[in-house]
Amino acid sequence: MSPGDRQPARRESEPEWEAHGSSAPQRATSAGHPAFLFDLDGTLVDSVYHHVLAWRDALEDAGVRLAVWRIHRRIGMSGGLLVNALLRETGHRFTAEEVERLQRAHAAIYARQAGDVRPLPGARDLLAHLTDAGVPWAIATSGKLESARPALDMLGIDPAGPGAIVTRDLVQHAKPDPDLFLAAAERLGVRIEAAVVVGDSVWDLLAARRARALGVALLSGGYGQDELERAGAYRVYQDPADLLFHLDEVGVRAIG
Amino acid sequence: MSPGDRQPARRESEPEWEAHGSSAPQRATSAGHPAFLFDLDGTLVDSVYHHVLAWRDALEDAGVRLAVWRIHRRIGMSGGLLVNALLRETGHRFTAEEVERLQRAHAAIYARQAGDVRPLPGARDLLAHLTDAGVPWAIATSGKLESARPALDMLGIDPAGPGAIVTRDLVQHAKPDPDLFLAAAERLGVRIEAAVVVGDSVWDLLAARRARALGVALLSGGYGQDELERAGAYRVYQDPADLLFHLDEVGVRAIG
Repeated sequence: MSPGDRQPARRESEPEWEAHGSSAPQRATSAGHPAFLFDLDGTLVDSVYHHVLAWRDALEDAGVRLAVWRIHRRIGMSGGLLVNALLRETGHRFTAEEVERLQRAHAAIYARQAGDVRPLPGARDLLAHLTDAGVPWAIATSGKLESARPALDMLGIDPAGPGAIVTRDLVQHAKPDPDLFLAAAERLGVRIEAAVVVGDSVWDLLAARRARALGVALLSGGYGQDELERAGAYRVYQDPADLLFHLDEVGVRAIG
Repeated sequence: MSPGDRQPARRESEPEWEAHGSSAPQRATSAGHPAFLFDLDGTLVDSVYHHVLAWRDALEDAGVRLAVWRIHRRIGMSGGLLVNALLRETGHRFTAEEVERLQRAHAAIYARQAGDVRPLPGARDLLAHLTDAGVPWAIATSGKLESARPALDMLGIDPAGPGAIVTRDLVQHAKPDPDLFLAAAERLGVRIEAAVVVGDSVWDLLAARRARALGVALLSGGYGQDELERAGAYRVYQDPADLLFHLDEVGVRAIG
Protein backbone atom coordinates (compact mmCIF):
# COMPACT_ATOMS: atom_id res chain seq x y z
CA MET A 1 0.00 0.00 0.00
CA SER A 2 2.58 2.51 0.98
CA PRO A 3 4.17 4.01 -2.12
CA GLY A 4 7.90 3.80 -2.40
CA ASP A 5 8.58 2.47 1.06
CA ARG A 6 11.60 4.70 1.27
CA GLN A 7 12.10 3.82 4.87
CA PRO A 8 11.31 0.15 5.29
CA ALA A 9 12.29 0.36 8.96
CA ARG A 10 9.09 2.29 9.52
CA ARG A 11 6.98 -0.70 8.46
CA GLU A 12 7.02 -1.88 12.02
CA SER A 13 5.00 1.21 12.93
CA GLU A 14 2.12 0.14 10.71
CA PRO A 15 -0.20 -0.95 13.50
CA GLU A 16 -0.18 2.71 14.57
CA TRP A 17 -3.13 3.73 12.48
CA GLU A 18 -5.14 1.00 14.15
CA ALA A 19 -5.12 3.05 17.31
CA HIS A 20 -6.68 5.93 15.39
CA GLY A 21 -9.61 3.79 14.40
CA SER A 22 -8.82 2.83 10.83
CA SER A 23 -10.15 -0.65 10.40
CA ALA A 24 -8.02 -1.45 7.36
CA PRO A 25 -5.35 0.46 5.47
CA GLN A 26 -6.98 -0.07 2.08
CA ARG A 27 -10.04 1.90 3.20
CA ALA A 28 -7.81 4.93 3.54
CA THR A 29 -6.88 4.85 -0.10
CA SER A 30 -10.40 4.64 -1.45
CA ALA A 31 -11.85 7.91 -2.65
CA GLY A 32 -14.52 7.90 0.02
CA HIS A 33 -12.14 7.69 2.96
CA PRO A 34 -9.37 10.22 3.07
CA ALA A 35 -6.69 10.32 5.74
CA PHE A 36 -5.94 13.53 7.66
CA LEU A 37 -2.47 14.95 8.24
CA PHE A 38 -2.58 17.76 10.79
CA ASP A 39 -0.19 20.56 11.48
CA LEU A 40 0.01 21.20 15.24
CA ASP A 41 0.74 24.85 16.19
CA GLY A 42 -2.11 27.15 15.15
CA THR A 43 -4.07 24.19 13.78
CA LEU A 44 -4.80 22.09 16.86
CA VAL A 45 -3.29 24.24 19.64
CA ASP A 46 -3.51 28.01 20.03
CA SER A 47 0.23 28.65 20.20
CA VAL A 48 1.06 30.81 17.17
CA TYR A 49 1.04 34.20 18.90
CA HIS A 50 3.16 32.88 21.76
CA HIS A 51 5.65 31.42 19.28
CA VAL A 52 5.74 34.70 17.36
CA LEU A 53 6.62 36.75 20.43
CA ALA A 54 9.14 34.13 21.61
CA TRP A 55 10.91 34.46 18.24
CA ARG A 56 10.75 38.25 18.51
CA ASP A 57 12.45 38.17 21.91
CA ALA A 58 15.06 35.58 20.85
CA LEU A 59 15.92 37.60 17.74
CA GLU A 60 16.14 40.85 19.67
CA ASP A 61 18.40 39.22 22.25
CA ALA A 62 20.63 38.22 19.31
CA GLY A 63 20.71 41.80 18.07
CA VAL A 64 18.17 41.37 15.26
CA ARG A 65 15.26 43.80 15.41
CA LEU A 66 12.27 42.77 13.35
CA ALA A 67 8.64 43.86 13.26
CA VAL A 68 6.41 41.20 14.81
CA TRP A 69 4.09 40.77 11.80
CA ARG A 70 7.04 39.70 9.64
CA ILE A 71 7.81 36.91 12.09
CA HIS A 72 4.13 35.92 12.12
CA ARG A 73 4.23 35.53 8.32
CA ARG A 74 7.12 33.03 8.63
CA ILE A 75 5.72 30.93 11.47
CA GLY A 76 5.08 27.33 10.44
CA MET A 77 8.30 27.00 8.46
CA SER A 78 11.09 24.95 9.91
CA GLY A 79 12.92 26.99 12.56
CA GLY A 80 16.09 26.97 10.49
CA LEU A 81 14.36 28.26 7.35
CA LEU A 82 12.46 30.84 9.39
CA VAL A 83 15.66 32.23 10.86
CA ASN A 84 17.40 32.27 7.49
CA ALA A 85 14.47 33.97 5.79
CA LEU A 86 14.22 36.63 8.48
CA LEU A 87 17.96 37.25 8.55
CA ARG A 88 17.93 37.63 4.78
CA GLU A 89 15.21 40.28 5.06
CA THR A 90 17.26 42.24 7.57
CA GLY A 91 20.61 41.74 5.86
CA HIS A 92 22.12 39.90 8.84
CA ARG A 93 24.47 36.98 8.36
CA PHE A 94 24.62 34.27 10.99
CA THR A 95 26.77 31.17 11.17
CA ALA A 96 25.07 27.78 11.38
CA GLU A 97 26.03 27.72 15.04
CA GLU A 98 24.41 31.10 15.66
CA VAL A 99 21.23 29.94 13.93
CA GLU A 100 21.23 26.85 16.13
CA ARG A 101 21.72 29.03 19.23
CA LEU A 102 18.82 31.25 18.15
CA GLN A 103 16.56 28.22 17.79
CA ARG A 104 17.51 27.04 21.27
CA ALA A 105 16.81 30.54 22.66
CA HIS A 106 13.38 30.55 21.02
CA ALA A 107 12.60 27.11 22.43
CA ALA A 108 13.62 28.20 25.93
CA ILE A 109 11.54 31.42 25.82
CA TYR A 110 8.53 29.59 24.39
CA ALA A 111 8.80 26.83 26.99
CA ARG A 112 8.33 29.41 29.76
CA GLN A 113 4.92 30.37 28.35
CA ALA A 114 3.83 26.97 27.07
CA GLY A 115 1.58 26.55 30.13
CA ASP A 116 -0.54 29.49 28.89
CA VAL A 117 -1.31 27.78 25.58
CA ARG A 118 -4.72 26.11 25.10
CA PRO A 119 -6.11 23.62 22.59
CA LEU A 120 -8.07 25.30 19.79
CA PRO A 121 -11.87 24.93 19.95
CA GLY A 122 -12.94 21.54 18.64
CA ALA A 123 -9.42 20.09 18.33
CA ARG A 124 -9.97 17.15 20.64
CA ASP A 125 -13.50 16.56 19.34
CA LEU A 126 -12.29 16.55 15.74
CA LEU A 127 -9.60 13.94 16.41
CA ALA A 128 -12.03 11.82 18.43
CA HIS A 129 -14.62 12.02 15.65
CA LEU A 130 -12.12 10.91 13.02
CA THR A 131 -11.04 8.04 15.21
CA ASP A 132 -14.67 6.98 15.73
CA ALA A 133 -15.33 7.27 11.99
CA GLY A 134 -12.37 5.04 11.19
CA VAL A 135 -10.50 7.81 9.39
CA PRO A 136 -6.74 7.55 9.85
CA TRP A 137 -4.98 10.71 11.02
CA ALA A 138 -1.51 11.81 11.94
CA ILE A 139 0.25 14.92 13.17
CA ALA A 140 3.10 16.42 11.16
CA THR A 141 4.81 19.41 12.77
CA SER A 142 7.80 21.58 11.89
CA GLY A 143 8.60 21.65 15.62
CA LYS A 144 10.86 19.21 17.37
CA LEU A 145 9.35 16.51 19.54
CA GLU A 146 10.67 18.22 22.67
CA SER A 147 8.78 21.45 21.95
CA ALA A 148 5.70 19.66 20.58
CA ARG A 149 5.28 17.50 23.69
CA PRO A 150 3.27 19.99 25.82
CA ALA A 151 0.86 20.53 22.90
CA LEU A 152 0.43 16.78 22.41
CA ASP A 153 -0.15 16.34 26.15
CA MET A 154 -2.81 19.05 26.00
CA LEU A 155 -4.60 17.15 23.22
CA GLY A 156 -4.36 13.89 25.11
CA ILE A 157 -2.02 12.34 22.54
CA ASP A 158 0.83 10.21 23.85
CA PRO A 159 3.86 10.81 21.58
CA ALA A 160 5.33 7.52 22.79
CA GLY A 161 2.01 5.83 22.12
CA PRO A 162 0.65 4.27 18.96
CA GLY A 163 -0.33 7.54 17.20
CA ALA A 164 1.53 8.66 14.09
CA ILE A 165 3.43 11.79 15.11
CA VAL A 166 6.04 13.10 12.69
CA THR A 167 8.25 15.87 14.06
CA ARG A 168 11.14 17.88 12.69
CA ASP A 169 13.59 15.39 14.22
CA LEU A 170 12.38 12.62 11.90
CA VAL A 171 12.80 14.21 8.47
CA GLN A 172 15.55 15.97 6.63
CA HIS A 173 13.53 19.04 5.58
CA ALA A 174 10.55 20.67 7.30
CA LYS A 175 7.80 22.79 5.69
CA PRO A 176 7.43 24.16 3.08
CA ASP A 177 9.21 20.99 1.92
CA PRO A 178 6.75 18.10 1.65
CA ASP A 179 8.80 15.62 3.72
CA LEU A 180 6.79 15.86 6.95
CA PHE A 181 3.49 15.12 5.22
CA LEU A 182 4.98 12.39 3.03
CA ALA A 183 6.43 10.70 6.11
CA ALA A 184 3.13 11.02 7.97
CA ALA A 185 1.16 9.43 5.11
CA GLU A 186 3.72 6.67 4.92
CA ARG A 187 3.44 5.98 8.63
CA LEU A 188 -0.34 5.76 8.27
CA GLY A 189 0.07 3.44 5.29
CA VAL A 190 -2.01 5.71 3.04
CA ARG A 191 -1.32 7.24 -0.36
CA ILE A 192 -0.46 10.94 -0.09
CA GLU A 193 -2.91 11.66 -2.94
CA ALA A 194 -5.73 10.42 -0.70
CA ALA A 195 -4.62 12.61 2.20
CA VAL A 196 -6.07 15.91 3.40
CA VAL A 197 -3.45 18.20 4.94
CA VAL A 198 -4.92 20.57 7.55
CA GLY A 199 -2.84 23.60 8.47
CA ASP A 200 -3.08 27.25 9.44
CA SER A 201 -0.14 28.67 7.51
CA VAL A 202 0.83 29.32 3.94
CA TRP A 203 3.78 26.93 4.47
CA ASP A 204 1.47 24.03 5.29
CA LEU A 205 -0.44 24.62 2.08
CA LEU A 206 2.67 24.95 -0.06
CA ALA A 207 4.03 21.73 1.44
CA ALA A 208 0.66 20.05 0.82
CA ARG A 209 0.75 20.99 -2.86
CA ARG A 210 4.32 19.83 -3.24
CA ALA A 211 3.28 16.54 -1.65
CA ARG A 212 0.17 16.33 -3.93
CA ALA A 213 -2.18 16.22 -0.95
CA LEU A 214 -5.36 18.29 -0.66
CA GLY A 215 -4.70 21.35 1.52
CA VAL A 216 -7.38 22.61 3.91
CA ALA A 217 -6.69 25.78 5.87
CA LEU A 218 -7.81 27.09 9.26
CA LEU A 219 -7.92 30.79 10.17
CA SER A 220 -6.88 29.98 13.73
CA GLY A 221 -3.22 30.83 13.12
CA GLY A 222 -4.14 34.43 12.33
CA TYR A 223 -3.45 34.45 8.58
CA GLY A 224 -6.04 36.04 6.32
CA GLN A 225 -8.39 33.85 4.26
CA ASP A 226 -7.09 35.29 1.01
CA GLU A 227 -3.45 34.46 1.78
CA LEU A 228 -4.45 30.88 2.48
CA GLU A 229 -6.55 30.55 -0.66
CA ARG A 230 -3.77 31.99 -2.80
CA ALA A 231 -1.42 29.40 -1.30
CA GLY A 232 -3.74 26.70 -2.60
CA ALA A 233 -6.28 26.01 0.14
CA TYR A 234 -9.10 23.84 -1.16
CA ARG A 235 -11.32 25.14 1.65
CA VAL A 236 -10.77 27.53 4.56
CA TYR A 237 -12.43 27.01 7.95
CA GLN A 238 -12.25 29.04 11.12
CA ASP A 239 -10.85 26.42 13.49
CA PRO A 240 -11.02 22.67 14.19
CA ALA A 241 -14.62 22.99 15.43
CA ASP A 242 -15.67 24.60 12.14
CA LEU A 243 -13.85 21.90 10.12
CA LEU A 244 -15.58 19.21 12.17
CA PHE A 245 -18.94 20.83 11.36
CA HIS A 246 -18.16 20.79 7.62
CA LEU A 247 -16.34 17.48 7.42
CA ASP A 248 -18.55 16.24 4.61
CA GLU A 249 -17.11 18.99 2.38
CA VAL A 250 -13.70 17.35 2.55
CA GLY A 251 -14.84 13.81 1.96
CA VAL A 252 -15.77 12.36 5.35
CA ARG A 253 -19.27 10.99 5.41
CA ALA A 254 -21.36 10.96 8.55
CA ILE A 255 -20.84 7.96 10.77
CA GLY A 256 -23.79 5.76 10.14
CA MET B 1 -11.26 76.97 7.15
CA SER B 2 -12.28 74.32 9.57
CA PRO B 3 -15.70 73.05 8.51
CA GLY B 4 -18.47 73.26 11.02
CA ASP B 5 -16.40 74.35 13.99
CA ARG B 6 -18.46 72.11 16.19
CA GLN B 7 -16.19 72.74 19.11
CA PRO B 8 -15.14 76.39 19.01
CA ALA B 9 -13.17 75.88 22.21
CA ARG B 10 -10.67 73.91 20.14
CA ARG B 11 -9.86 77.00 18.06
CA GLU B 12 -7.22 77.83 20.62
CA SER B 13 -5.40 74.67 19.62
CA GLU B 14 -5.03 75.85 16.05
CA PRO B 15 -1.35 76.74 16.34
CA GLU B 16 -0.82 72.99 16.91
CA TRP B 17 -0.40 72.14 13.26
CA GLU B 18 2.26 74.81 13.07
CA ALA B 19 4.48 72.55 15.16
CA HIS B 20 4.00 69.82 12.59
CA GLY B 21 5.29 72.06 9.88
CA SER B 22 2.17 73.20 8.06
CA SER B 23 2.88 76.71 6.90
CA ALA B 24 -0.77 77.67 6.45
CA PRO B 25 -4.05 75.86 7.09
CA GLN B 26 -5.43 76.59 3.62
CA ARG B 27 -2.60 74.52 2.11
CA ALA B 28 -3.95 71.50 3.92
CA THR B 29 -7.30 71.76 2.23
CA SER B 30 -5.96 72.09 -1.31
CA ALA B 31 -5.98 68.91 -3.36
CA GLY B 32 -2.19 68.85 -3.53
CA HIS B 33 -1.57 68.85 0.19
CA PRO B 34 -3.41 66.26 2.19
CA ALA B 35 -3.24 65.97 5.95
CA PHE B 36 -2.40 62.65 7.63
CA LEU B 37 -4.34 61.12 10.51
CA PHE B 38 -2.48 58.17 11.99
CA ASP B 39 -3.63 55.29 14.08
CA LEU B 40 -1.02 54.44 16.72
CA ASP B 41 -0.89 50.73 17.71
CA GLY B 42 0.20 48.55 14.78
CA THR B 43 0.60 51.62 12.57
CA LEU B 44 3.41 53.57 14.23
CA VAL B 45 4.39 51.23 17.09
CA ASP B 46 4.74 47.45 17.01
CA SER B 47 2.32 46.73 19.83
CA VAL B 48 -0.52 44.71 18.30
CA TYR B 49 0.68 41.24 19.27
CA HIS B 50 1.39 42.36 22.83
CA HIS B 51 -2.08 43.89 23.07
CA VAL B 52 -3.62 40.71 21.68
CA LEU B 53 -2.01 38.48 24.29
CA ALA B 54 -2.78 40.97 27.08
CA TRP B 55 -6.46 40.79 26.09
CA ARG B 56 -6.23 36.99 25.96
CA ASP B 57 -4.88 36.86 29.51
CA ALA B 58 -7.37 39.43 30.85
CA LEU B 59 -10.28 37.55 29.28
CA GLU B 60 -9.09 34.20 30.56
CA ASP B 61 -8.69 35.65 34.08
CA ALA B 62 -12.33 36.75 33.80
CA GLY B 63 -13.38 33.23 32.82
CA VAL B 64 -13.72 33.86 29.07
CA ARG B 65 -11.70 31.49 26.92
CA LEU B 66 -11.18 32.70 23.37
CA ALA B 67 -8.81 31.69 20.58
CA VAL B 68 -6.11 34.34 20.13
CA TRP B 69 -6.75 34.98 16.42
CA ARG B 70 -10.33 36.10 17.19
CA ILE B 71 -8.97 38.74 19.55
CA HIS B 72 -6.44 39.82 16.91
CA ARG B 73 -9.29 40.40 14.44
CA ARG B 74 -10.97 42.80 16.91
CA ILE B 75 -7.88 44.79 17.91
CA GLY B 76 -8.12 48.46 16.94
CA MET B 77 -11.75 48.82 17.99
CA SER B 78 -12.52 50.73 21.14
CA GLY B 79 -11.84 48.51 24.15
CA GLY B 80 -15.52 48.54 25.11
CA LEU B 81 -16.68 47.47 21.65
CA LEU B 82 -13.96 44.83 21.49
CA VAL B 83 -15.06 43.28 24.75
CA ASN B 84 -18.73 43.38 23.77
CA ALA B 85 -18.03 41.85 20.37
CA LEU B 86 -15.95 39.05 21.87
CA LEU B 87 -18.44 38.34 24.63
CA ARG B 88 -21.22 38.17 22.05
CA GLU B 89 -19.22 35.57 20.08
CA THR B 90 -18.80 33.43 23.17
CA GLY B 91 -22.32 33.94 24.53
CA HIS B 92 -21.09 35.57 27.75
CA ARG B 93 -22.97 38.46 29.32
CA PHE B 94 -21.07 41.03 31.34
CA THR B 95 -22.33 44.07 33.21
CA ALA B 96 -20.93 47.49 32.28
CA GLU B 97 -18.89 47.31 35.46
CA GLU B 98 -17.41 43.94 34.50
CA VAL B 99 -16.51 45.26 31.03
CA GLU B 100 -14.81 48.24 32.68
CA ARG B 101 -12.91 45.89 35.01
CA LEU B 102 -11.80 43.79 32.04
CA GLN B 103 -10.47 46.89 30.29
CA ARG B 104 -8.51 47.87 33.39
CA ALA B 105 -7.09 44.33 33.63
CA HIS B 106 -5.99 44.47 29.99
CA ALA B 107 -4.34 47.85 30.54
CA ALA B 108 -2.48 46.56 33.60
CA ILE B 109 -1.23 43.40 31.83
CA TYR B 110 -0.23 45.37 28.73
CA ALA B 111 1.60 47.98 30.83
CA ARG B 112 3.87 45.26 32.22
CA GLN B 113 5.11 44.46 28.68
CA ALA B 114 5.01 47.95 27.22
CA GLY B 115 8.78 48.25 27.64
CA ASP B 116 9.24 45.46 25.08
CA VAL B 117 7.35 47.35 22.37
CA ARG B 118 9.35 49.12 19.63
CA PRO B 119 8.49 51.76 17.03
CA LEU B 120 7.71 50.29 13.61
CA PRO B 121 10.39 50.73 10.94
CA GLY B 122 10.24 54.20 9.44
CA ALA B 123 7.67 55.59 11.91
CA ARG B 124 9.82 58.42 13.22
CA ASP B 125 11.25 59.15 9.75
CA LEU B 126 7.78 59.34 8.23
CA LEU B 127 6.53 61.83 10.81
CA ALA B 128 9.71 63.91 10.48
CA HIS B 129 9.39 63.90 6.69
CA LEU B 130 5.79 65.11 6.81
CA THR B 131 6.75 67.85 9.24
CA ASP B 132 9.62 68.95 6.95
CA ALA B 133 7.29 68.87 3.93
CA GLY B 134 4.75 71.08 5.68
CA VAL B 135 2.10 68.36 5.71
CA PRO B 136 -0.09 68.52 8.82
CA TRP B 137 -0.49 65.27 10.73
CA ALA B 138 -2.19 64.04 13.88
CA ILE B 139 -2.55 60.82 15.83
CA ALA B 140 -6.00 59.36 16.52
CA THR B 141 -6.04 56.26 18.69
CA SER B 142 -8.76 54.07 20.19
CA GLY B 143 -6.55 53.79 23.28
CA LYS B 144 -6.74 56.08 26.27
CA LEU B 145 -4.03 58.69 26.75
CA GLU B 146 -2.68 56.78 29.73
CA SER B 147 -2.00 53.64 27.69
CA ALA B 148 -0.88 55.58 24.59
CA ARG B 149 1.74 57.57 26.49
CA PRO B 150 4.61 55.00 26.30
CA ALA B 151 4.07 54.70 22.54
CA LEU B 152 4.10 58.47 22.10
CA ASP B 153 7.27 58.71 24.20
CA MET B 154 8.89 56.09 22.00
CA LEU B 155 8.09 58.16 18.91
CA GLY B 156 9.41 61.31 20.53
CA ILE B 157 5.97 62.95 20.62
CA ASP B 158 5.06 64.94 23.71
CA PRO B 159 1.34 64.41 24.38
CA ALA B 160 1.32 67.62 26.44
CA GLY B 161 3.09 69.43 23.59
CA PRO B 162 1.70 71.16 20.54
CA GLY B 163 0.97 68.00 18.49
CA ALA B 164 -2.60 67.00 17.71
CA ILE B 165 -3.20 63.78 19.64
CA VAL B 166 -6.76 62.54 19.87
CA THR B 167 -7.31 59.66 22.27
CA ARG B 168 -10.33 57.66 23.39
CA ASP B 169 -10.79 60.01 26.35
CA LEU B 170 -11.63 62.92 24.05
CA VAL B 171 -14.47 61.51 21.96
CA GLN B 172 -17.74 59.78 22.66
CA HIS B 173 -17.22 56.82 20.32
CA ALA B 174 -13.99 55.17 19.20
CA LYS B 175 -13.37 53.19 15.97
CA PRO B 176 -15.06 51.97 13.85
CA ASP B 177 -17.04 55.16 14.56
CA PRO B 178 -15.52 58.11 12.72
CA ASP B 179 -15.32 60.45 15.76
CA LEU B 180 -11.58 60.09 16.42
CA PHE B 181 -10.61 60.98 12.86
CA LEU B 182 -13.17 63.81 12.63
CA ALA B 183 -11.83 65.30 15.85
CA ALA B 184 -8.24 64.95 14.66
CA ALA B 185 -8.99 66.73 11.36
CA GLU B 186 -10.78 69.47 13.25
CA ARG B 187 -7.84 69.96 15.58
CA LEU B 188 -5.56 70.27 12.57
CA GLY B 189 -7.98 72.71 10.97
CA VAL B 190 -8.29 70.61 7.81
CA ARG B 191 -11.29 69.27 5.96
CA ILE B 192 -11.76 65.54 6.59
CA GLU B 193 -12.23 65.02 2.83
CA ALA B 194 -8.64 66.19 2.33
CA ALA B 195 -7.30 63.81 4.99
CA VAL B 196 -5.52 60.50 4.56
CA VAL B 197 -6.20 58.06 7.39
CA VAL B 198 -3.35 55.59 7.94
CA GLY B 199 -4.15 52.47 9.94
CA ASP B 200 -3.35 48.78 10.23
CA SER B 201 -6.78 47.39 11.02
CA VAL B 202 -10.11 46.92 9.31
CA TRP B 203 -11.64 49.22 11.97
CA ASP B 204 -9.41 52.13 10.97
CA LEU B 205 -10.51 51.73 7.36
CA LEU B 206 -14.19 51.45 8.20
CA ALA B 207 -13.92 54.57 10.38
CA ALA B 208 -12.06 56.35 7.56
CA ARG B 209 -14.86 55.61 5.11
CA ARG B 210 -17.53 56.69 7.54
CA ALA B 211 -15.57 59.94 8.01
CA ARG B 212 -15.15 60.33 4.19
CA ALA B 213 -11.36 60.34 4.47
CA LEU B 214 -9.06 58.31 2.22
CA GLY B 215 -7.96 55.12 4.02
CA VAL B 216 -4.42 53.80 3.58
CA ALA B 217 -3.50 50.51 5.24
CA LEU B 218 -0.30 49.05 6.63
CA LEU B 219 0.37 45.31 6.96
CA SER B 220 2.31 45.90 10.17
CA GLY B 221 -0.62 45.02 12.42
CA GLY B 222 -0.67 41.49 11.02
CA TYR B 223 -3.91 41.64 9.00
CA GLY B 224 -3.88 40.23 5.47
CA GLN B 225 -3.76 42.59 2.49
CA ASP B 226 -7.06 41.29 1.19
CA GLU B 227 -8.93 42.00 4.44
CA LEU B 228 -7.65 45.56 4.36
CA GLU B 229 -8.55 46.08 0.71
CA ARG B 230 -12.03 44.70 1.25
CA ALA B 231 -12.46 47.16 4.12
CA GLY B 232 -11.78 49.97 1.67
CA ALA B 233 -8.02 50.59 1.69
CA TYR B 234 -7.02 52.89 -1.18
CA ARG B 235 -3.48 51.48 -0.99
CA VAL B 236 -1.77 48.92 1.25
CA TYR B 237 1.87 49.30 2.33
CA GLN B 238 4.05 47.10 4.50
CA ASP B 239 4.90 49.56 7.25
CA PRO B 240 5.62 53.28 7.80
CA ALA B 241 8.97 52.96 5.97
CA ASP B 242 7.20 51.56 2.90
CA LEU B 243 4.55 54.31 3.03
CA LEU B 244 7.31 56.93 3.25
CA PHE B 245 8.93 55.42 0.15
CA HIS B 246 5.64 55.66 -1.79
CA LEU B 247 4.34 58.93 -0.38
CA ASP B 248 3.79 60.37 -3.87
CA GLU B 249 1.10 57.72 -4.45
CA VAL B 250 -1.02 59.27 -1.73
CA GLY B 251 -0.59 62.88 -2.77
CA VAL B 252 2.57 64.15 -1.11
CA ARG B 253 5.03 65.59 -3.59
CA ALA B 254 8.76 65.48 -3.02
CA ILE B 255 10.15 68.31 -0.93
CA GLY B 256 12.12 70.67 -2.99
